Amino acid sequence: MRRHNRTALLRRLHVDGPCTRAALATELGLNRSTIKALVDGLASAGVVAERVPAQRSGAGRPSLLVLPQPHAAVVLAIDVRVEQVSMAMVGIGGEILGRHSWNLHRKSREPGEVITHIADSSQLLADELSVDVVGVGVSVPGVVRRADGQVHEAPNLQWTDVPLGKRLAAVLRKPVQVGNDAELGALAEHVRGAARGAADMVYVSADVGVGGGVISGGSPLRGTGGYVGELGHMVIRHDGRQCYCGSQGCWETEVGEPALCRALALPEGSPRGAVVAELRSLAEEPGDPAGVEHRLGDFTYWLSLGLVNVVNMLGPELVVLGDLFASLPTEVVERASATVHQRSLVSRAVGGTRIVISTLGRDAKLIGAAELAFEPVLGTV
Amino acid sequence: MRRHNRTALLRRLHVDGPCTRAALATELGLNRSTIKALVDGLASAGVVAERVPAQRSGAGRPSLLVLPQPHAAVVLAIDVRVEQVSMAMVGIGGEILGRHSWNLHRKSREPGEVITHIADSSQLLADELSVDVVGVGVSVPGVVRRADGQVHEAPNLQWTDVPLGKRLAAVLRKPVQVGNDAELGALAEHVRGAARGAADMVYVSADVGVGGGVISGGSPLRGTGGYVGELGHMVIRHDGRQCYCGSQGCWETEVGEPALCRALALPEGSPRGAVVAELRSLAEEPGDPAGVEHRLGDFTYWLSLGLVNVVNMLGPELVVLGDLFASLPTEVVERASATVHQRSLVSRAVGGTRIVISTLGRDAKLIGAAELAFEPVLGTV
Repeated sequence: MRRHNRTALLRRLHVDGPCTRAALATELGLNRSTIKALVDGLASAGVVAERVPAQRSGAGRPSLLVLPQPHAAVVLAIDVRVEQVSMAMVGIGGEILGRHSWNLHRKSREPGEVITHIADSSQLLADELSVDVVGVGVSVPGVVRRADGQVHEAPNLQWTDVPLGKRLAAVLRKPVQVGNDAELGALAEHVRGAARGAADMVYVSADVGVGGGVISGGSPLRGTGGYVGELGHMVIRHDGRQCYCGSQGCWETEVGEPALCRALALPEGSPRGAVVAELRSLAEEPGDPAGVEHRLGDFTYWLSLGLVNVVNMLGPELVVLGDLFASLPTEVVERASATVHQRSLVSRAVGGTRIVISTLGRDAKLIGAAELAFEPVLGTV
Repeated sequence: MRRHNRTALLRRLHVDGPCTRAALATELGLNRSTIKALVDGLASAGVVAERVPAQRSGAGRPSLLVLPQPHAAVVLAIDVRVEQVSMAMVGIGGEILGRHSWNLHRKSREPGEVITHIADSSQLLADELSVDVVGVGVSVPGVVRRADGQVHEAPNLQWTDVPLGKRLAAVLRKPVQVGNDAELGALAEHVRGAARGAADMVYVSADVGVGGGVISGGSPLRGTGGYVGELGHMVIRHDGRQCYCGSQGCWETEVGEPALCRALALPEGSPRGAVVAELRSLAEEPGDPAGVEHRLGDFTYWLSLGLVNVVNMLGPELVVLGDLFASLPTEVVERASATVHQRSLVSRAVGGTRIVISTLGRDAKLIGAAELAFEPVLGTV
């Protein structure tokens, strides 16, 4: 029971930040002496610190503010993307203590190369920051078996059947959790981003591919074997382009980065910076909604149809658009919202599903990987 | 604890049927004296009976077989369809003790008429069977708020904002649970049908409309506010027909009963019997797969595309086809399975999602309504 309460208290501080003893007692439904014993125990272990709050409320002795101490438990978060690997050391409370990233090209994208680079760079980063990590979380843009971190298929990386979890655990000698990138984006937005407090939400993001993660009833939605769905591969345009997955007219082929390049009349495979710059220049012509319509009208239509399907199938209160989608002009998001409201009877039933832009931006999957690593750790600190 | 064990034991008998004391002890992880006390308590309350099993296993005194007594707790299950209302009295263990049904036409489909008819008929059926119901479960083909049984929209019934749960509870004076028909079909197939033991499954059925219910991790998947998704309204054919829901090219418009009538060259709105007879005659021409392809090729294509999307989004191990879909020729189901395997990367990842026909047939939603009514009851018997 004491262990259970300790974990609950630590999770509260980790997710929602510093809090007075008095508020902790109220929120967790524990009496003050129990809170005192727990906080004293965590403080003497160096996991939390206490200080007098800057603002006093009411008369009398102020309730002490309890703060998580980031260095008390640090995880290594890794976001493997098609063009880049990012890593961060993240402390309790979610503070990013240090970062490192490197670009990938065709050869360095090979699993063995990526794993070696991760091992070397994480050691350097840990030394530089004088931290010892207690767990590792990894985001991969592919079909991942959660139980053991087996990457079944990560097509844009050209990975097939890579035992990433096992191989990383062998070289890092720490517990390693591997998740699908969109699933981790959803987790991050749910815990720390645009979907805080939303028990039923969907995160949809475009990097090179398009993925989606679902939180249902406050927990991640997974299919059999722990695999998550691949929203990017729903067929949205039956007479559309061939997709590498063996299907045709997948949402990804209509609204992924190559499709966006085509819509913007940029060469497919343009650098991400060029795509984002072009989207910004469109967004910064406020007098020219017709320009947005002219250039992104078709793109917006396919984005909207996919969102109608996501909302009709899952009934979320909120859809968060992440990664490249977060750079779309406001008009596009507004148009998609209007289409969802008009065409989705489920959206109407639930009182109008909101479509919003990610607040974590490009960090969402990295932050989600950190949360994945923290899950088994918080009970043992 | 005793109450908890008693409920677990009763649920075991209700779902899986008669069982020896010895097997109950093993399955529930309880010792024999605890099982004896629980069974004795339930037997003296008339909820279970015991008898010597017909087949003895091994030497020594045989372990007694414990059987649920259906009349000890009876629920009223109601399946409201577009063309018909069915009701059944269902006892613990799932035995159907008696049934009644009546056809609906335009006027008798009005909510007040349906509620009055349900009240009258259920009283007659209860008197005839000498039972007193402890709870009521209702299946409705529409968008339903589970918390209070509010029917937001049941378009094929032409119902909008009907407080069905409250109105039925007022006239029946029993606890009433209302669910979406496809959600209850999924529940029934999961507990008693083709998806027994499958923790991640989807039930898809066609009546006049097309609906889907999802079991994820052993529990029903719901969106915000307790609303379930409407799989039948995913856009599958962007250039397809207008749907009454305000969208276009919904799965329902391509594979619902009217679409099947068009494919079979029957007038839309043909009696269900005529549609099923035509499907049977196709299925009974084993030498003529070309005939099936010729007449149902397009229909099969749209059915398959929708299934690809369902599998890619939800990653189930099993999809159960119910109601009118259960009458489809084997070739159609095989073709759909092949397409899902070929076009769904999630199906390949999870080792091949199976597409099967409902084993409960037309009773699935009625049985699901009974299970819905039993859920809050089993803990209080």
